[in-house]
Amino acid sequence: MQLENYIRDIQDFPKEGILFKDITPLLLHPEARAKCLDALVDLLDQQPIDKVVGVESRGFFFGTLLADRLGAGFIPVRKPNKLPYATISASYALEYGTDSLEIHTDAIQPGDRILIHDDVLATGGTAKAVCELVERLGGTIVQCSFLMELSFLNGSEKLKPHPVAAVLTY
Amino acid sequence: MQLENYIRDIQDFPKEGILFKDITPLLLHPEARAKCLDALVDLLDQQPIDKVVGVESRGFFFGTLLADRLGAGFIPVRKPNKLPYATISASYALEYGTDSLEIHTDAIQPGDRILIHDDVLATGGTAKAVCELVERLGGTIVQCSFLMELSFLNGSEKLKPHPVAAVLTY
Repeated sequence: MQLENYIRDIQDFPKEGILFKDITPLLLHPEARAKCLDALVDLLDQQPIDKVVGVESRGFFFGTLLADRLGAGFIPVRKPNKLPYATISASYALEYGTDSLEIHTDAIQPGDRILIHDDVLATGGTAKAVCELVERLGGTIVQCSFLMELSFLNGSEKLKPHPVAAVLTY
Repeated sequence: MQLENYIRDIQDFPKEGILFKDITPLLLHPEARAKCLDALVDLLDQQPIDKVVGVESRGFFFGTLLADRLGAGFIPVRKPNKLPYATISASYALEYGTDSLEIHTDAIQPGDRILIHDDVLATGGTAKAVCELVERLGGTIVQCSFLMELSFLNGSEKLKPHPVAAVLTY
């Protein structure tokens, strides 16, 4: 079973010139999804994890599954004004302007061993903002894991010194 | 372990007069989260499920976990313009105006046995729109399951004749 066969290329989504990697076929096929989850767990190489941080919203899918498999807590990082309790936020650059992400202040205790998860690593701007949130709350980032890394965009450079791992690389 | 202790009441969120049920403490605690997942599975009473539909975005958390536990496919139902492939949409009433939800047209095959999942059943407008999407694609709705039902809002009436189940009732 080739996991690549369950990632669908969509031309010009969400806008012209972008080739979008659609993971819904992977979510739809139980065996492929389970194999992908196994691969994400293997990338951790048995390092213990206290909490998994999943990035809104495609990072929620395998983020919750990883937390379940690892027996870890799950923490959603969300767009502004979605989390109801006390939050801190970090902003990141978009092509035009900026956007920001929030985390609950009580989600991480100093020293917690954290796995950050999202579906795609592109330029790394989003993941870098998530790293900043985790570190401001005192968490230790064990790994930033992704289903896919678009390596030509050099996102893993931007995340240094944090370890980056991905199931598939394009 | 009382699951109610892992649901946090937030006054006046997202706006004044609303008492918001925050499930992030439940997501954060592995044992409580696992117990809640067990309870959702038990509510199904061993009825076979082909695919779980999770509603953006808080329905994604336990929706993916349910799909994993049941060995079923997972289908995200999303806000407009988030799903990249061919979709159909259904609208539902808000306090002021309407909103809509979308599903990929290739996500469901006629006769698929579907479990619909979201975090909270309030007035039932959102879940009813999801039922409509599932049925337009030929799916058979086995159950609409929720973490919480706000029974004073009579949402389960609106979803008839579909079976409704919830772990907690307020």
